[in-house]
Amino acid sequence: MSGNTFGKLFKLTSFGESHGKALGGVIDGCSAGIELDLNAIQYEMDRRKPGQSAIVTQRKEPDTVEFYSGIFEGKTTGAPIGFVIHNTNQKSHDYSHIKDSYRPSHADYVFDKKYGFRDYRGGGRTSARETASRVVAGAVAKQLLKGIEINAFVSSVGDIFIDKPYQDLDFSKIESNPVRCPDEASAAKMEERIREIRKEGDTIGGTVTCVIKNVPVGLGEPVFDKLHADLGKAMLSINAVKGFEYGSGFCGAKMKGSEHNDLFNPDGTTKTNLSGGIQGGISNGMDIYFRVAFKPVATIMKEQETIDKEGNIVKMMGKGRHDPCVVPRAVPIVEAMAALVLADNYLLSRTNRI
Amino acid sequence: MSGNTFGKLFKLTSFGESHGKALGGVIDGCSAGIELDLNAIQYEMDRRKPGQSAIVTQRKEPDTVEFYSGIFEGKTTGAPIGFVIHNTNQKSHDYSHIKDSYRPSHADYVFDKKYGFRDYRGGGRTSARETASRVVAGAVAKQLLKGIEINAFVSSVGDIFIDKPYQDLDFSKIESNPVRCPDEASAAKMEERIREIRKEGDTIGGTVTCVIKNVPVGLGEPVFDKLHADLGKAMLSINAVKGFEYGSGFCGAKMKGSEHNDLFNPDGTTKTNLSGGIQGGISNGMDIYFRVAFKPVATIMKEQETIDKEGNIVKMMGKGRHDPCVVPRAVPIVEAMAALVLADNYLLSRTNRI
Amino acid sequence: MSGNTFGKLFKLTSFGESHGKALGGVIDGCSAGIELDLNAIQYEMDRRKPGQSAIVTQRKEPDTVEFYSGIFEGKTTGAPIGFVIHNTNQKSHDYSHIKDSYRPSHADYVFDKKYGFRDYRGGGRTSARETASRVVAGAVAKQLLKGIEINAFVSSVGDIFIDKPYQDLDFSKIESNPVRCPDEASAAKMEERIREIRKEGDTIGGTVTCVIKNVPVGLGEPVFDKLHADLGKAMLSINAVKGFEYGSGFCGAKMKGSEHNDLFNPDGTTKTNLSGGIQGGISNGMDIYFRVAFKPVATIMKEQETIDKEGNIVKMMGKGRHDPCVVPRAVPIVEAMAALVLADNYLLSRTNRI
Amino acid sequence: MSGNTFGKLFKLTSFGESHGKALGGVIDGCSAGIELDLNAIQYEMDRRKPGQSAIVTQRKEPDTVEFYSGIFEGKTTGAPIGFVIHNTNQKSHDYSHIKDSYRPSHADYVFDKKYGFRDYRGGGRTSARETASRVVAGAVAKQLLKGIEINAFVSSVGDIFIDKPYQDLDFSKIESNPVRCPDEASAAKMEERIREIRKEGDTIGGTVTCVIKNVPVGLGEPVFDKLHADLGKAMLSINAVKGFEYGSGFCGAKMKGSEHNDLFNPDGTTKTNLSGGIQGGISNGMDIYFRVAFKPVATIMKEQETIDKEGNIVKMMGKGRHDPCVVPRAVPIVEAMAALVLADNYLLSRTNRI
Repeated sequence: MSGNTFGKLFKLTSFGESHGKALGGVIDGCSAGIELDLNAIQYEMDRRKPGQSAIVTQRKEPDTVEFYSGIFEGKTTGAPIGFVIHNTNQKSHDYSHIKDSYRPSHADYVFDKKYGFRDYRGGGRTSARETASRVVAGAVAKQLLKGIEINAFVSSVGDIFIDKPYQDLDFSKIESNPVRCPDEASAAKMEERIREIRKEGDTIGGTVTCVIKNVPVGLGEPVFDKLHADLGKAMLSINAVKGFEYGSGFCGAKMKGSEHNDLFNPDGTTKTNLSGGIQGGISNGMDIYFRVAFKPVATIMKEQETIDKEGNIVKMMGKGRHDPCVVPRAVPIVEAMAALVLADNYLLSRTNRI
Repeated sequence: MSGNTFGKLFKLTSFGESHGKALGGVIDGCSAGIELDLNAIQYEMDRRKPGQSAIVTQRKEPDTVEFYSGIFEGKTTGAPIGFVIHNTNQKSHDYSHIKDSYRPSHADYVFDKKYGFRDYRGGGRTSARETASRVVAGAVAKQLLKGIEINAFVSSVGDIFIDKPYQDLDFSKIESNPVRCPDEASAAKMEERIREIRKEGDTIGGTVTCVIKNVPVGLGEPVFDKLHADLGKAMLSINAVKGFEYGSGFCGAKMKGSEHNDLFNPDGTTKTNLSGGIQGGISNGMDIYFRVAFKPVATIMKEQETIDKEGNIVKMMGKGRHDPCVVPRAVPIVEAMAALVLADNYLLSRTNRI
Repeated sequence: MSGNTFGKLFKLTSFGESHGKALGGVIDGCSAGIELDLNAIQYEMDRRKPGQSAIVTQRKEPDTVEFYSGIFEGKTTGAPIGFVIHNTNQKSHDYSHIKDSYRPSHADYVFDKKYGFRDYRGGGRTSARETASRVVAGAVAKQLLKGIEINAFVSSVGDIFIDKPYQDLDFSKIESNPVRCPDEASAAKMEERIREIRKEGDTIGGTVTCVIKNVPVGLGEPVFDKLHADLGKAMLSINAVKGFEYGSGFCGAKMKGSEHNDLFNPDGTTKTNLSGGIQGGISNGMDIYFRVAFKPVATIMKEQETIDKEGNIVKMMGKGRHDPCVVPRAVPIVEAMAALVLADNYLLSRTNRI
Repeated sequence: MSGNTFGKLFKLTSFGESHGKALGGVIDGCSAGIELDLNAIQYEMDRRKPGQSAIVTQRKEPDTVEFYSGIFEGKTTGAPIGFVIHNTNQKSHDYSHIKDSYRPSHADYVFDKKYGFRDYRGGGRTSARETASRVVAGAVAKQLLKGIEINAFVSSVGDIFIDKPYQDLDFSKIESNPVRCPDEASAAKMEERIREIRKEGDTIGGTVTCVIKNVPVGLGEPVFDKLHADLGKAMLSINAVKGFEYGSGFCGAKMKGSEHNDLFNPDGTTKTNLSGGIQGGISNGMDIYFRVAFKPVATIMKEQETIDKEGNIVKMMGKGRHDPCVVPRAVPIVEAMAALVLADNYLLSRTNRI
């Protein structure tokens, strides 16, 4: 397996399976001299962890991060930051229902074909539990990016959407409800919808919107590594993501140039921001905003037909505690990945000019 | 500037500006022994080149590829394939209107801020002319991927959409009309719409859909380098792209798990394919399909207000010959980038197992 | 800091400081299905660890490796292999003599200048303790390289050299003496020399030779990533290394072409092997052999003059337990790095041909 | 084939075979705003080109560089710099003697085994002609490194050595003789030796020493990407190189710590410089110096026995015009590779601290 490293200069290499001894990672390329607030890092972990509210999975994992290197007297030293999150919830589970059968819309089948066998304990490396490492690294990246504000929030659950532009939302309300939706009326409806779905034994999709303020002009590289291409890859690498759009997004494909162009103010800001804060792959100082689509969680508490390794039809039903809707817990993960992309491009931008 | 290389094993490094002497690139990592059909490569270049029909830019560029290395006696040798496309259309242009002013929704402003100055001749490195190199490399990648079929087509122009599933389309009709839309009724409407828009001096956005058949099971890496994350980055790196979705995409975010899960047939294929041919980032052997949103071209033949370097408000109007709608010419570029992603992941998949 | 990852496909990312909580690393890119002998890995760690004999440092560190991921039912799964070596010897040391002063021929001074401050506890990230992670990864790589034999040994200590070609040595004797020199007569002299040096409070340099047998033809890439260039970089990245030569090495620079050329046997082997098993950067199936020069350890038990941060002249004398000669413990590290290079190039070679 | 890119941030990707249409490359990552002296670049090419004197190959190749992109109004723009060197000497050669036979100590045999066949025209990709691209990129890197002085020179031919420390040499004399040896007495002997060898139809090895002055403190990364490890890989990637040592090198392996340690002056410089300007992989501001061993050229004008593809013994004798000793022409290549390493690490060092 390749592809367990993200980033060009500010790099996270992650490891760990859902039911192994521990997850963790190495952050390499972090500049020296950043005063790290470890509580702020644990705070992000707590936002991601299961069991926070009635509408997410009821599994209990403390998800405490231990740092092993790269920090001295409260500051980053420049050395790689190694960290580990021990899996405390490692009791002997019953995996018999998935050991030899393939869960629909999971990666069980493709893993067996690709690697010849698989770690069948709860999804192994394909589990979203891996994103815990991303949240740690993203929280470090956020501290490198002093002054840049990254706010993600749930913008839809099923067909319930916030019907306001993000400018009308109060981001300080994001954490005020378990859905992480800053629009309280929508949040209430979304929460209700998730409760219903859970009762049905079903799951539901949703979207997360992310807004990034105070980005300096000049981040991103103009050809293959456009800033939005890096952001898109980052988001699409999160489990269950099916789509990414930034600025005008798919709506922009219906517009005319005369409607879509962002005209300049004398100071270089633009009157509109359909571009989403990025021109030609490079940040222009306006707000960066994008939207990420998450499919419904594949594990449902309803019986489904599937196949076993020999191709026999078998019945299967989800066991254990799973999220009925992934977007509330995806919010800190989206922010973390955005922070990784920005930190990486920020360091790279230091080489722009001689 | 970084980021002029795409790929991990099958790598394209590209160079060249719209109005410089030549564009080109180096393909590194291509396996030895592929019998290259050079006509097939030039054919892809001809699909991308300007002046093919009345609804694209009327500029004339022959876009002939010259190969300088890496091919011997008709076969790839394993050595890097260097190629060049000379810019024949290099006559002295009048750039006075853009030299000191910033075109709205172009990268002029951010280039000046990032690099301190810019090559103002027709967009320089930010021009979509750079995609010519991608089409060359993609055409080589296609020949490495014998048996895999990659078909992209225009699925919408403005608000005119093909209203059929892709399974009902005849891909052999893609090249039968200048829009590159396989649904003839829609194609006619789209062509009409583009003609109108051009008369208005305006431009319009659209979408390209891509369908990939016969992909072996097992391409893609499960964490950061998921196959769809690589595809998403590839597409988002194309000029004017605002969004990417695969499989159920943004619609999937509205669905329930019980509706969205793809149930297995005994042979490992699935009854439905909302997953879009990829499970957990790894190809599952079903059709891969995705959709890419393109904004309207920013250069319009209407007067717009903008600013010059000093922040003075100035009037500006597009000069020269520009595409009123970019999607017809984007079709071969989307295919090329898809081919690069697949070739790269195909080579990588050879290291899966011992 | 960058550069904590080694390899292109079989990659080690390492972390950890000499006196931090733990060292460790992530092995990414290891193929699935390798039956891992964990005892063989610990055996390599034991060869590297301090306190093995009277001629190495008397520090006590058990250096037990814990694997956190990537192994299931005794086999590599393809997922990244995360591992940790806890520093058990973390008692509060007295660093006052090095906190504000720069040890001669150590990296203290350059770290302060590069990063603005440094982790002054025993060398921090610059300590050779970091090589423990390399030995773990190298031991995994060895198991991927079934059939390839990698044998390193001490070929000189100070001016005491083995004066035989490697073909006349019995590699099974390498572990029979604490110097790790397979020539017993030389080993005795070397051991004596190291004992003397230690009594003087001084240190001494030496060389390690490495011989690799049964390498398949075709490993290595012909231009920048020549197999010997990768090996050279690997060796030069080990602490205290000052030089690398392979095959005829520096002696080859004195020879004539008619003396130096290796003539072929009908089966493609060569009658001589001044090339050192590599032609044009690619393995040719003959034994690969190379020699690595290690300087004397910089920490000596004699008083030296040096400077403090303010540039004042101060007296300094080594404290603690240090190696009088690094080469006996370097032997497993040289083997580990060689194994990493070979495993990486072995995986890459799978993409040679279509 | 992989490995045609050198560098992490300042990157050269090269292409081209000895007898193909053209060689060239792409320099990616070069900062914007460098005023490029194109004559200085061509000057380096002229130093490398064949036919400069009676003691190098008499082939005639003008080796004129054409730049295709990345330069505008005399300055680097930040965009990738694409360049090409046309092979003008492409007349139909007679390759019958090497088409089906393997030249001893060349890469013919391993290429056939690795790739299944080979471009047999004059060595193809394995030819040292590829280094022309390195010299172009190195000359650009030198201009990024304003103030840093890189001087390489021939320090030995066969057993004729300069017997002075480099501090006693006048580098302005390097170009005063065809050997590129700044010690005139040695230069005369070396030239005489090469003339003799050529008359014999034989070839001879030699060494190149490189001295780099005015390097800022702090270049290089402390673990795998130590500055000397990068330099070592760079040098070992040059054709015919068998060894690399820096600072005290192999002699250092015979010394005691008390002799080898470089004691500090109050200003942070050191009284001696056995370290060779690098401590723990990081430049310390003292002169960097290293030595590179080149084997004798494998093509000799004497009859040798070798084998053909079927394993039959055949006679072979070199044809055409070859260098009797490679070191005089290797001097600018060594400098170019050193410049690439320094430029790369210089850009990287900008991310050291926040």
